[in-house]
Amino acid sequence: MLAKSTASGISLCPHFKTHFSAEIAELYRELGVTACSVSSVEMAQYFAENDWDKITIAFPYNPLESNEINQLASNCAINIFIESEESLKAAKEQLTNTVGFYLKIDVGSHRTGIDPRNESLIKKLVDSSTEKLCYKGVYAHAGHTYGCNDLESIQWIFDKARKELSELKNKFSGKILFGDTPSCSLMEDFSWCDELRPGNFIFYDWMQKTIGSCTTEEIAVCLAAPVVAVHPERSEVVIHGGAVHLSKDAVTEKNQKCYGKAVSLTKDGWNTEIIGSVTRLSQEHGVIKINQDLIKEMKIGSLIGILPVHSCLAADLQGHYIDTSGARIEKMRKS
Amino acid sequence: MLAKSTASGISLCPHFKTHFSAEIAELYRELGVTACSVSSVEMAQYFAENDWDKITIAFPYNPLESNEINQLASNCAINIFIESEESLKAAKEQLTNTVGFYLKIDVGSHRTGIDPRNESLIKKLVDSSTEKLCYKGVYAHAGHTYGCNDLESIQWIFDKARKELSELKNKFSGKILFGDTPSCSLMEDFSWCDELRPGNFIFYDWMQKTIGSCTTEEIAVCLAAPVVAVHPERSEVVIHGGAVHLSKDAVTEKNQKCYGKAVSLTKDGWNTEIIGSVTRLSQEHGVIKINQDLIKEMKIGSLIGILPVHSCLAADLQGHYIDTSGARIEKMRKS
Repeated sequence: MLAKSTASGISLCPHFKTHFSAEIAELYRELGVTACSVSSVEMAQYFAENDWDKITIAFPYNPLESNEINQLASNCAINIFIESEESLKAAKEQLTNTVGFYLKIDVGSHRTGIDPRNESLIKKLVDSSTEKLCYKGVYAHAGHTYGCNDLESIQWIFDKARKELSELKNKFSGKILFGDTPSCSLMEDFSWCDELRPGNFIFYDWMQKTIGSCTTEEIAVCLAAPVVAVHPERSEVVIHGGAVHLSKDAVTEKNQKCYGKAVSLTKDGWNTEIIGSVTRLSQEHGVIKINQDLIKEMKIGSLIGILPVHSCLAADLQGHYIDTSGARIEKMRKS
Repeated sequence: MLAKSTASGISLCPHFKTHFSAEIAELYRELGVTACSVSSVEMAQYFAENDWDKITIAFPYNPLESNEINQLASNCAINIFIESEESLKAAKEQLTNTVGFYLKIDVGSHRTGIDPRNESLIKKLVDSSTEKLCYKGVYAHAGHTYGCNDLESIQWIFDKARKELSELKNKFSGKILFGDTPSCSLMEDFSWCDELRPGNFIFYDWMQKTIGSCTTEEIAVCLAAPVVAVHPERSEVVIHGGAVHLSKDAVTEKNQKCYGKAVSLTKDGWNTEIIGSVTRLSQEHGVIKINQDLIKEMKIGSLIGILPVHSCLAADLQGHYIDTSGARIEKMRKS
């Protein structure tokens, strides 16, 4: 992703909401990355404590957290997201330290953001820029690429976003921040942007594999779960690995829900051959439909690997990671 | 639930996997409850540290946690669940302190458990009982009641479970442990059981309301989430409240996914009138479809309440609770 940004002549400001870990973030720092994106003020605090001093809080401004943002902005270069007059007004009244703001543009996912055609609102907000609360540019997350499973649909979304954001940049100047993982994985030319900010690609997951963003071999995180029951008559094993470990995010495959893909573990990782699917998930239990010729090899008390459907949510549910050498990797904790 | 158990002449051994909190568990202790159920060894350790000394680990025996179970059984009366010869053999070889075992019976949810008609296996396991690893009875979780939304279906599942478990008790003696929250909420006569062990009823949630187990007024947990964007043109507000706060468990209402129900907060709680539904949920964002006549009252920077669809999973995702007086309630942390 760094090579891709460099080739396009732009910088990488990766999203840290996938790994939640200062130790993993160091891997980026070693490669020269100096700025990061986060999805909450709490996450900004955690990474600020871990010596990140250029942080974009990639979430609509929350007036209830102005004190925490002021505190952060006393030591760090902080950017926030604005998408309405109300939130800019609140930020102006509340923020006493210098903070940059990006306008969140809705390029089609219709979750948050300003309609790019609403230029009167965009102009009003840009014109309200001050030295203390300074307009920096526009940002968009093309989250609707997650509904795609072919290159053409992603290309279509990408081209539309490029056109809309480039027009806004021409009119209002400032930077363009962009970057959902599917677009960033599958598209090549980002020279029209100023910063790429994907996050999920650090681990990838089965959903990204389904979208086409990655191969199975590129998935870099796996849940090791103990087998606690084997039911050969229905070719199923039950693991201690449930919604509190994997989350309930699912993809649908052949009309069946899939909450993760089973792989066999090795001494220092896992084989990438898929040996089954997690088809049911309750709080602590996962039920895996195992390829029929392998069910006889399944043993109670063994460990099985699960490639998560959504690595960000599965990672959020863990207290820590273990790397492939067996060393513990710490991560952010909820207060 | 305690009154219901007492009326049936049996004891209540509530499941603590919904609240995860020693402080909330004290509410049970004050009412005379002395034994609890948990869904993991880690949870057993947490409650043992908090002076619970009669603990049923209501999850199939995991041979990889034998050391931890031995440690627990040195101070506590521990029961485990067995559902195969393999797991009983492993437990016999590994467990050095006295532990009780219940046979997990599959009364129809087909997740884990022994087919109640498989009496030869049940007999073999019961006959393997020793003083150290002692057969205590049978247990079943009628988890398929969660697929019901009428009393008749739940009654049918309940009657079938009663018949199957009572027959096993007649033949093999021991106790009957039973208790999913829908059955325990809607049925009355539990005199055929020995212990009731529901968990979810401590909070209830929107899924239980949909099943018919509770009223909206009985839901006792709510996520307070800040409003960060208001979109009157589509009658939607966006909250900082996503899959990392609520989980992605959903119910389907009128062909639309619902991840939680919005209520207005009060000084010391919330109004029970439903004002909207969480119809979309990503990692940190929730999108609420608000009743159209109320959208004008929605303000960025205000708090809104969300009754979760699945309180156990939403509670697992929190670092702590706040009670209605504003006091912090601690809960178990992931290691």
